[in-house]
Amino acid sequence: MESMMIYMPIAMAVLGLIYMAIKRSWVLKQDAGDGKMKEISDYIYEGALAFLSAEYRLLAIFVVIVSVLLTIVSFVVPTTHWLIVIAFIFGAIFSAYAGNVGMKIATKTNVRTTQAARTSLPNALKISFGGGTVMGLGVAGLAVLGLTAFFIVFYKFVFMPDGWTNTGDMTIVLETLAGFSLGAESIALFARVGGGIYTKAADVGADLVGKVEAGIPEDDPRNPATIADNVGDNVGDVAGMGADLFGSYVATVLAAMVLGNYVIKDMGGSIADAFGGIGPILLPMAIAGAGIIISIIGTMLVKINSNDAKEAQVMGALNKGNWTSIILVALACFGLCTWMLPETMNMEFFGEGLQEISAMRVFYATLVGLVVGAVISSVTEYYTGLGKAPILKIVQQSSTGAGTNIIAGLATGMISTFPSVLLFAGAIWASYAFAGFYGVALAASAMMATTAMQLAIDAFGPISDNAGGIAEMSEQEPIVRERTDILDSVGNTTAATGKGFAIASAALTSLALFAAYVTFTGIDGINIFKAPVLAMLFVGGMVPVVFSALAMNAVGKAAMEMVQEVRRQFKAIPGIMEGTGKPEYDKCVAISTQASLKQMMLPGLLTIGFPLVIAFVPLLFGMDNLAIAEMLGGYMAGVTVSGVLWAIFQNNAGGAWDNAKKSFEAGVEINGEMTYKGSDAHKAAVTGDTVGDPFKDTSGPSMNILIKLTCLIGLVIAPILGGHTEDGIALTEVQEIEVIANTTSDKEVEKKIEVNMNAGDDGQAKATVITTVTKDGQTTKEEKVYEGTTEEVKAAVESVEKNVTIKVKKGK
Amino acid sequence: MESMMIYMPIAMAVLGLIYMAIKRSWVLKQDAGDGKMKEISDYIYEGALAFLSAEYRLLAIFVVIVSVLLTIVSFVVPTTHWLIVIAFIFGAIFSAYAGNVGMKIATKTNVRTTQAARTSLPNALKISFGGGTVMGLGVAGLAVLGLTAFFIVFYKFVFMPDGWTNTGDMTIVLETLAGFSLGAESIALFARVGGGIYTKAADVGADLVGKVEAGIPEDDPRNPATIADNVGDNVGDVAGMGADLFGSYVATVLAAMVLGNYVIKDMGGSIADAFGGIGPILLPMAIAGAGIIISIIGTMLVKINSNDAKEAQVMGALNKGNWTSIILVALACFGLCTWMLPETMNMEFFGEGLQEISAMRVFYATLVGLVVGAVISSVTEYYTGLGKAPILKIVQQSSTGAGTNIIAGLATGMISTFPSVLLFAGAIWASYAFAGFYGVALAASAMMATTAMQLAIDAFGPISDNAGGIAEMSEQEPIVRERTDILDSVGNTTAATGKGFAIASAALTSLALFAAYVTFTGIDGINIFKAPVLAMLFVGGMVPVVFSALAMNAVGKAAMEMVQEVRRQFKAIPGIMEGTGKPEYDKCVAISTQASLKQMMLPGLLTIGFPLVIAFVPLLFGMDNLAIAEMLGGYMAGVTVSGVLWAIFQNNAGGAWDNAKKSFEAGVEINGEMTYKGSDAHKAAVTGDTVGDPFKDTSGPSMNILIKLTCLIGLVIAPILGGHTEDGIALTEVQEIEVIANTTSDKEVEKKIEVNMNAGDDGQAKATVITTVTKDGQTTKEEKVYEGTTEEVKAAVESVEKNVTIKVKKGK
Repeated sequence: MESMMIYMPIAMAVLGLIYMAIKRSWVLKQDAGDGKMKEISDYIYEGALAFLSAEYRLLAIFVVIVSVLLTIVSFVVPTTHWLIVIAFIFGAIFSAYAGNVGMKIATKTNVRTTQAARTSLPNALKISFGGGTVMGLGVAGLAVLGLTAFFIVFYKFVFMPDGWTNTGDMTIVLETLAGFSLGAESIALFARVGGGIYTKAADVGADLVGKVEAGIPEDDPRNPATIADNVGDNVGDVAGMGADLFGSYVATVLAAMVLGNYVIKDMGGSIADAFGGIGPILLPMAIAGAGIIISIIGTMLVKINSNDAKEAQVMGALNKGNWTSIILVALACFGLCTWMLPETMNMEFFGEGLQEISAMRVFYATLVGLVVGAVISSVTEYYTGLGKAPILKIVQQSSTGAGTNIIAGLATGMISTFPSVLLFAGAIWASYAFAGFYGVALAASAMMATTAMQLAIDAFGPISDNAGGIAEMSEQEPIVRERTDILDSVGNTTAATGKGFAIASAALTSLALFAAYVTFTGIDGINIFKAPVLAMLFVGGMVPVVFSALAMNAVGKAAMEMVQEVRRQFKAIPGIMEGTGKPEYDKCVAISTQASLKQMMLPGLLTIGFPLVIAFVPLLFGMDNLAIAEMLGGYMAGVTVSGVLWAIFQNNAGGAWDNAKKSFEAGVEINGEMTYKGSDAHKAAVTGDTVGDPFKDTSGPSMNILIKLTCLIGLVIAPILGGHTEDGIALTEVQEIEVIANTTSDKEVEKKIEVNMNAGDDGQAKATVITTVTKDGQTTKEEKVYEGTTEEVKAAVESVEKNVTIKVKKGK
Repeated sequence: MESMMIYMPIAMAVLGLIYMAIKRSWVLKQDAGDGKMKEISDYIYEGALAFLSAEYRLLAIFVVIVSVLLTIVSFVVPTTHWLIVIAFIFGAIFSAYAGNVGMKIATKTNVRTTQAARTSLPNALKISFGGGTVMGLGVAGLAVLGLTAFFIVFYKFVFMPDGWTNTGDMTIVLETLAGFSLGAESIALFARVGGGIYTKAADVGADLVGKVEAGIPEDDPRNPATIADNVGDNVGDVAGMGADLFGSYVATVLAAMVLGNYVIKDMGGSIADAFGGIGPILLPMAIAGAGIIISIIGTMLVKINSNDAKEAQVMGALNKGNWTSIILVALACFGLCTWMLPETMNMEFFGEGLQEISAMRVFYATLVGLVVGAVISSVTEYYTGLGKAPILKIVQQSSTGAGTNIIAGLATGMISTFPSVLLFAGAIWASYAFAGFYGVALAASAMMATTAMQLAIDAFGPISDNAGGIAEMSEQEPIVRERTDILDSVGNTTAATGKGFAIASAALTSLALFAAYVTFTGIDGINIFKAPVLAMLFVGGMVPVVFSALAMNAVGKAAMEMVQEVRRQFKAIPGIMEGTGKPEYDKCVAISTQASLKQMMLPGLLTIGFPLVIAFVPLLFGMDNLAIAEMLGGYMAGVTVSGVLWAIFQNNAGGAWDNAKKSFEAGVEINGEMTYKGSDAHKAAVTGDTVGDPFKDTSGPSMNILIKLTCLIGLVIAPILGGHTEDGIALTEVQEIEVIANTTSDKEVEKKIEVNMNAGDDGQAKATVITTVTKDGQTTKEEKVYEGTTEEVKAAVESVEKNVTIKVKKGK
């Protein structure tokens, strides 16, 4: 059984995908309503497909360019294998396909939800959440399937066909696998950033001309941009979020595998366990696999029975499913950690040396991750939830005008970084204290195990939002809109908490990648007391700020193009305002699509370009590889710290403004007076929401991609930078060295010998011998360094240190 | 001559203060105008004094508390001398006195400027800039006087009465001197943060009730808050900026001295030069001293002749003075570096070992600082200047409402971090490459040398602003207001560029302090790959964001108290609107004063509390001192990187909104149409300015204090954390060790021996002996570590290493 564990995650992924297919055909079999509804739904579906196909064309070009670059790299750098290109392409395809499945089901489910809402609320929830489940399982299933399949191929068939050899070979397996993750995250850049620009450009464009200039309500079918607006909900919130979490999921598991390999290295380069000696590497995949089945169980629990249910009952049903999956994941982690890991492991703690870590401590680290996932949602909910103190304060401040509303919203977003960052800092500390960086990566893996469930909850929001829009546009009875509004209202809350989850996942993923980066490059750490490293920390800190500004400006530019198109149609199409002329929805969709993809170029270039410049420009000037690796590490840390802060700030400020505005719909008490929509205070709140829209839907969520992609690019570059040791010996192909160092001890004198030797395939080697002698309670440490040809060093060490034998085998 | 150089800076400071006194009495002798003008001016003067005395009472309590804490620390920690308490108190007094001088002269100069404007513009400039000069020289003179006087006392009379002993004793001199810097920066906290809250609370409060509710113009004497508003200009822009730069000036020079001592340490612990062996330590003080005289020359060049001059001529006169001083400082740096430094020095570069650095390279580093000071002003000017592209864009975006205006302003502030951070990062890199962290600190010192000139230019702005206000309130002829408006307009530009200079100075100062911190604690560096350090980097990054939010909220709260008081007076005082009843200005001043000082408590506590918690809570739990020192270093780096970003973002966004609003006064073209004050676009721009006000005058400038004070607190804590070595040997009082290590060499074999020995007064010692043997071109390195009692280690090293002799003298 144990030896078959390597196939467990792939089996779970396939199971998840089968369940998804069944659920999908069930949703599609539901009644899609009558003429008008179906017509609108079809427009949205076609608009979504139009965006996807435009995105795919651009993506194809991008994938080809990156593939060519990776191919060149893989031929120039001996530690980079050309299979990374294949992995990269498949990572991109899998993520794109997952987004495609999600978008299609979301745009098919919306109208079916509207139709179901005509009969009952429980049915409407069942269908909308069913659509979300398809989306969630599609993403999670494809992510696990792709990653584990490539791992098995690389491990079992390419690099170690005869079973475990050494950690060096496994490093190459995982470096190659990083291509898959890079491919997935590249799609996320397009889907999340491009999608974020799309959704807000369409929204702002539709509102500016429709609501403000023409005075027609939101979601009015006379507005040519209204379909683009609805497509935007799917593009941004469904496909964008899906690609984001797909990327996080893959990257987290990959980073945990890299660090698992490092655990094996710290334990002497091989361990004897029932899992083919790779238990610590398999564990994160196993947790991911278990998470898929657990998510299926969780989604089954989401249902309500009463047709009179309100928001609280719907929220309760979602919470029940969510909490059940979190608890089940905790149980699974306990079982898997104790079963798959050696009882105790050695892990290297920087500055503290090797420590013995028990499997239980790794389990504790996974608990830290689950706690972070749950708590960050509550924190986000507190700062952005209707009726909570921060929102009430923004509402109060709206009475003195837009200026004070804006200040209050900004301040709320900024203050919300306090508990969030303390939570992350505490999580880093605790999971590291439990089990080193392997613990940090496993904390992230455990949190991400419920990805399918989180995405189901998340995707259900925009589906319900769309369902409401279709109800409005097709002029359904009020009860239908009331029911979809209940779902939509819950969906707004889950959208905010989902964003919290996405930030937490991006933050932990980046940390895990950061740790993996350091182990890949072989640097001792990242010392910010070196001025170039500190300078790069500054530059890294700046990038998220500039990226956010570019994303916000992009929304403005794309929205302006939309405004002009809508104005043109209002003038050019006769009878459009009377409802007799038909707006050209497709032209608006095309404009949003083109503009958003064009506008994401610059921020995308910033994301990809900076790490490449930092790595390769100094390389051209002949700077030391490890010094560059440290600088790039400083840059990555700067991007991560600043990016996480700006993500929290922007998401929560945006969410808070949004709900402050929504508060006026039901009426709020300001200075003892009930105030409603249309009041001056409400107008001020609308201004806040205008600012908040790009914050929470474009620049804020983009930060996740920025920080993960930065760390992933670093990881892919790592082997290039790490190919040389400190002393300029080219360790381009590491040779395997076996060192047998005996330690003698009698009653009075104890002698410990520790040998570290590095040998490159250029025949040069360096060995460090540390001899610790304890005599009469007095300890003397002696460290000797030998440098020269491999043979010379080997001979020198063996002749001087009598208890040492060194065998040097030729590496791969 | 050379041996007297230690007295040079103090002599220059005294010269500067004498010139200041002459200039001051000249300004005060000028005509202070007639009844109404004088009355208003007196109100402002008294209001300013009321704020100062309230601030001093609070300060006194603060100084007593910190003094008690420092006294306890100095008795518990042997490496901290009790004289640090005296230095701290004097640092606070000197800075407070400098602020006092500046505030008094500024509030006396304003009315004299108005009076002079009645006759001619050149005269008005002469007087207003004269007031600024008094302010600038007061701050710079007192800063240099205080710092150098304490250095001479500590060095010559307390710790090394018989001349140079060793770098350990000099470290204690400089650690004690850090108290002076801490005192100065504490005042800056009150003046800059409290003052920033004051100025905006009064401004917003006066506008909300006066302009919005009562419909009376700005600066109308019927508004009870109008005097508080004018006091606020002085409190925030004059006293706040003065205390900020006073703190930067002292801290920069101190940090450069600490790193100068480190250079001597790297050169073997003593150097033979004509400056008593402390040339590298004296150099930053000498540059500061020269800077005072140079600034006097610079201020003399600021004058115009034509009464018909416009903004460009006035700006030209200021630029002439400024550029002359910058060029003269460059020349002075060349002279002083080549004269006072050894021709070549050894400096330790982390990770690269000792390098030979010439005096010329130190000079190049100072040039880097001067370039940064000049370029950052241009960058700030570009992003916030009237008529520049970013402002025109915000103006355009105002036409679609407040929402788009806000987004455009935020985006401008965010994008402005790009060139600014690249500039800082380049400066860190370049000055470090030239001369290590000593180079970074000297770059900062050179930039700060023109402080007096910068402050003169900066203080001239609010003086002219006030002069205009007095002209308005005392109903002068339009020509008077026109002339003061020209000065005010130039003052707005210099205020923005001055803020850029202040940020740059805070950033470089913090870096220098950061470097000094590492050398004080004796850690190897700050490795962010250690999870606790990384966690603290996150926490540090969060603090400026939360601090900014607290400061913004504080403005809101304080402004509300003001609003209520003004409303009360409008109701309670009969005839106030008709001009027959007299408003109670003093009550408004009192409310601003109390509210601002109360509201600065929380952000102040955050600033001081966090580093103390990070240092002492883990200490209580028995965590390793050096690990804590590294964590605290990570925190400091996080605060600095994030603080600099948020300072640039907030200052430039605020400045941009301000000038976008001002653009409407002269009229702007939007979509081909001229648009003026009162238009919808203008109203949107006013909303932007409301948000920008606390950004640019409260939270933005507060960042400078936050980052410097954080690093200073770290520096003062450093000896407590650094008092123990890695292996737990208490080096509470370092003994002096003389090591004579001979290196032998014949034709074929070369042998180098390097010995590092640490011995504590508890009798324990540790020595590291590195022997490098080169034979036939083949190098073998051998490192041996000996631990035990000092005598044992000494004997062991001498017996094993035949070429080494060790003498251990009893330390102080």
